Amino acid sequence: MLENWTKPQIPETDELEERLSTARAKLSALQMQIKEHGLPVLVLFEGWGTAGKGSVLGKVIKNIDPRFFKVATMDAPTEEERRKPFFYRYFIKIPEKGKFEFLDSGWMDEIVNDCLHERMGEKEYKKKIESVKRFERQLTDNGYLVLKFFFQISQKEQKKRIEHLRADKNTEWRVSRNDDWQNKHYDKCLHVFDRYLNDTNAAADPWYIIDAKNRKWAELQVLETLVSGIETALKNSDLAVPLLQNVFPLEKIPKLSEISLDKEISEEEYKKELKKLQTKLSELHNRLYREKIPVIIAYEGWDAAGKGGNIKRITEALDPRGFEVHPIASPEPHEKARHYLWRFCNRLPKTGHIAIFDRTWYGRVMVERLEGFCNENEWQRAYNEMNEFEKELADWGAVIIKFWVQIDKDTQLARFEDRQNTPEKQWKITDEDWRNREKWDLYESAVNEMLKKTNTTYAPWHVLESNDKKYARIKALKIVIEAIEKALK
Amino acid sequence: MLENWTKPQIPETDELEERLSTARAKLSALQMQIKEHGLPVLVLFEGWGTAGKGSVLGKVIKNIDPRFFKVATMDAPTEEERRKPFFYRYFIKIPEKGKFEFLDSGWMDEIVNDCLHERMGEKEYKKKIESVKRFERQLTDNGYLVLKFFFQISQKEQKKRIEHLRADKNTEWRVSRNDDWQNKHYDKCLHVFDRYLNDTNAAADPWYIIDAKNRKWAELQVLETLVSGIETALKNSDLAVPLLQNVFPLEKIPKLSEISLDKEISEEEYKKELKKLQTKLSELHNRLYREKIPVIIAYEGWDAAGKGGNIKRITEALDPRGFEVHPIASPEPHEKARHYLWRFCNRLPKTGHIAIFDRTWYGRVMVERLEGFCNENEWQRAYNEMNEFEKELADWGAVIIKFWVQIDKDTQLARFEDRQNTPEKQWKITDEDWRNREKWDLYESAVNEMLKKTNTTYAPWHVLESNDKKYARIKALKIVIEAIEKALK
Repeated sequence: MLENWTKPQIPETDELEERLSTARAKLSALQMQIKEHGLPVLVLFEGWGTAGKGSVLGKVIKNIDPRFFKVATMDAPTEEERRKPFFYRYFIKIPEKGKFEFLDSGWMDEIVNDCLHERMGEKEYKKKIESVKRFERQLTDNGYLVLKFFFQISQKEQKKRIEHLRADKNTEWRVSRNDDWQNKHYDKCLHVFDRYLNDTNAAADPWYIIDAKNRKWAELQVLETLVSGIETALKNSDLAVPLLQNVFPLEKIPKLSEISLDKEISEEEYKKELKKLQTKLSELHNRLYREKIPVIIAYEGWDAAGKGGNIKRITEALDPRGFEVHPIASPEPHEKARHYLWRFCNRLPKTGHIAIFDRTWYGRVMVERLEGFCNENEWQRAYNEMNEFEKELADWGAVIIKFWVQIDKDTQLARFEDRQNTPEKQWKITDEDWRNREKWDLYESAVNEMLKKTNTTYAPWHVLESNDKKYARIKALKIVIEAIEKALK
Repeated sequence: MLENWTKPQIPETDELEERLSTARAKLSALQMQIKEHGLPVLVLFEGWGTAGKGSVLGKVIKNIDPRFFKVATMDAPTEEERRKPFFYRYFIKIPEKGKFEFLDSGWMDEIVNDCLHERMGEKEYKKKIESVKRFERQLTDNGYLVLKFFFQISQKEQKKRIEHLRADKNTEWRVSRNDDWQNKHYDKCLHVFDRYLNDTNAAADPWYIIDAKNRKWAELQVLETLVSGIETALKNSDLAVPLLQNVFPLEKIPKLSEISLDKEISEEEYKKELKKLQTKLSELHNRLYREKIPVIIAYEGWDAAGKGGNIKRITEALDPRGFEVHPIASPEPHEKARHYLWRFCNRLPKTGHIAIFDRTWYGRVMVERLEGFCNENEWQRAYNEMNEFEKELADWGAVIIKFWVQIDKDTQLARFEDRQNTPEKQWKITDEDWRNREKWDLYESAVNEMLKKTNTTYAPWHVLESNDKKYARIKALKIVIEAIEKALK
């Protein structure tokens, strides 16, 4: 795209000024429509060092009420950020509905720098490109407008600007070592940038190359693209999105009705096994920590299936400084205003740590589906989106273990009644639990569909037969231990 | 406290076991009461390296449902954390109502290490102690139970443990350089620890020294203290807190009714001044960034007083990568579940950056007071708490500028009507605005009280006469410029 890029014709001064004031006024008017329609707009400013990203950005936001936008400057990742998945630091910055987020710069910068400085091989680059494409597609699929700008200047122009900045002690600090490096290796950079732009140029979120030699002209190009992008997105806001074919390796998993629930364990054997397995897990946690492997354990299951007690038997074996349990309730307003995976991304562990989710992102295809909190296109799409999300985590090196805690309907009733009748357990039972119970069959079929569509080899489901809670606890411990041992090998 | 500490008598094994199981059961039962009463519990584990904080912590949390607690391991602050005020990284970790947060370790560790390694002089130490005392008092005043444990072992015992850990390659990594250092300089450490404990031993959140030689015994001491602490706190949950006398330097400020609102500026002069001042501010922002000075600008004012437009004239002059505007609405559930300053602490700028608050923590003594969202003791206390909060920020080096944007009642009516009648402005006017208008007099007297009680020399209020919005904008720019220039000198 860059290498064969044709520089657009810069308009005459009069026309430029006129178009500028039109575009500014339009953007200013559009911000209210963005707010009304709840459109989230993510704008990426990428490009050559000293190309003027910051100064154009400064001009653009003058047309927007400061309450409706945020700007994030992404430097090289910190030590702490390096202990999270690649996309973590970008994902947590995505805007709320009705607001703008400007990133200066985005993930392109991080990736091309890793390529240029040989911190990333060909194979890893290709994998990253797949991640980027998925990430960007998920955003647009979920209603985000993603606008990507690349600020282009020539080698000569860049050199001139570097010298100019360096000549004044007030601006000298703005020239980075990387700017010098780029200028010295301009052709090499051009080639890597070009390849990245080509590789990530998708119909829903195409690249816009900005001729950045003249500041006002650059501003105009950005403004006009923003305006037309927003106008299009506002028209399309109710469009459904094509469902993608599954591309991930799936394994067969039985339906819930095919699972025999008569498995039991004696009290004596339970105690013996529990002690043995917890001691083992405790040792492994130590090794996980040292080898910096992150672990994600996801619990789903019927109300009163015994998730809480099951989780407790896991955490009892863990060093308290190395795990976190995340109870997942219905999303708060700031969570609902973003991509539904956002609040889970926010709770990911760092390397060497364990995150246990007590209910998970799979709520999308269970409660949100059945209670109508999302539309059909959204939950249909979610299977693939969650497979992608977990693929990202698996590629990062995470051990992912997903549990479905299974009981039958009679057992649930008995436990509900026990909760109702035992004062210190009453907090555990709500009217909602009874209402959900009435929809047992609908839930069962949704769960079957979920298990079938998301039982990937890299993040498989495990059904825990929990009519006998003790049996389920021992089984969970064994599965966790086995998965960790495999990862440590 | 440590130097003259009398080691408690360790009970016989039988008694120890019996008391342990009693205490465990009690803690387990109490967690439900904590949940019901919405009591937040913050537990600090401090003490000598290798004293067994982690292992006792691991035992303690076995009695608590994993959904009701979190554990945070606080290492030395990262580069990013060093760019925030000292308390930032601790404050953001405080628990929600009804939950436990365990810190291993807390701010003591950071302070005593700075003392021991001579990164902190006597004067700074004393200032820090004042901050600590205020911070802890604010937490307990706001309904937090703060329990502070210090794990004590002798020099001999520590040496034995270090050698023991080092002998096994699975535990070798647990010995830190600091553990060795402590053991070598035991007496020096003891003295510094002792002083810190004495200096921060308050009635509402006293220190508990734990004899940590025997693990089970240490566990029992912690459990029993937790249990009795929680029982006491539950009994006291409705107690009001004494109001403290003001200790901060205040300056006189006129009442709103004494402020003349006939100030105006001509269109021509406005344009000229605006351009000049924005250019000036833009240069200063550059210098702020380089000298790493943080700036906090707080806007309060009547509805329709012109806060938004005023803020815009400030931000237009700023580099978008160096500021953030925080529009403050009513708190979300996770915010309401914590100390009312928590959500503002979370939004503090880092050094060199500017944070602009569009409405602020002063909501506590205006809308929350008048709408009954907090009780009288709470808002009465808040003046001092906010002065303390700002003192912390000022001591950190922040420039703090607080604006009250003032208009008269007629001007507000005219602007409300204009908003009502102009389609693109209608989003700016809500029923709530009209309801607030009816309470003008109540608000005015609350504002007067607020201005009087929080007009500190280090964080003064400035009234912006905004019947003429342009006049107010120019005045705001001048004040911001002056404050920044003063800080840069």
